[in-house]
Amino acid sequence: MSSALPEWLGKVRWDENGLVPVIAQELGSNDVLMFAWMNREALARTVELGEAVYWSRSRKKLWHKGEESGHTQKVHEIRLDCDEDVVLLKVEQAGAIACHTGRHSCFFQQFDGNGWHAVEPVLKDPERIYK
Amino acid sequence: MSSALPEWLGKVRWDENGLVPVIAQELGSNDVLMFAWMNREALARTVELGEAVYWSRSRKKLWHKGEESGHTQKVHEIRLDCDEDVVLLKVEQAGAIACHTGRHSCFFQQFDGNGWHAVEPVLKDPERIYK
Repeated sequence: MSSALPEWLGKVRWDENGLVPVIAQELGSNDVLMFAWMNREALARTVELGEAVYWSRSRKKLWHKGEESGHTQKVHEIRLDCDEDVVLLKVEQAGAIACHTGRHSCFFQQFDGNGWHAVEPVLKDPERIYK
Repeated sequence: MSSALPEWLGKVRWDENGLVPVIAQELGSNDVLMFAWMNREALARTVELGEAVYWSRSRKKLWHKGEESGHTQKVHEIRLDCDEDVVLLKVEQAGAIACHTGRHSCFFQQFDGNGWHAVEPVLKDPERIYK
């Protein structure tokens, strides 16, 4: 695939590892669901599929979000920031659960002045998500 | 200051450069305004001031957002994600302008299937912002 990368991918300022940070935001609520990374192939696949495909830095491979959990993200809009080095996706979140902990959003820990506390409910037991 | 870093800063998983990615989201609209980075001191200063202080990777110094433009960000909430390596701020954006291009949000370029196009208006001429 790298032999035929579309030209619009060149507009993105990929970092020294060939990655770009990606924010996934829920269509409608505008909730920030998660943060991940993409390489060129992940972004090209995302456009092709119409679903979010990230680059897993820990597993070092493409990660079609929801491939195990079923919690796919249908992509409605792709934005690029002023410096062309951050991507924002507007997505429809399957199951309304983006986080591997079974919560709506990954950003469920709130700072109260002294420490961090989980303030969002677990909607589905992770053991039932990844069975 | 580094001699007396508060304990809650240790919960954050700082990267190999001592940084964490930060998403700034507008209180109310939930619009994603910008993306930047913080080091430990920037996050501590943010909490102290109640206004967003980032770490400028290009200038290699603390950057009190709005120090030149006046477009400060009053911080209402600080969130941490499930992996404890990304921060989300809920902010009140002074002037409703977060971007150095004079736009509301830095994410003003939209992908249309072939390329990226600016789809958000310039609210204030950058030459009038940075005078």
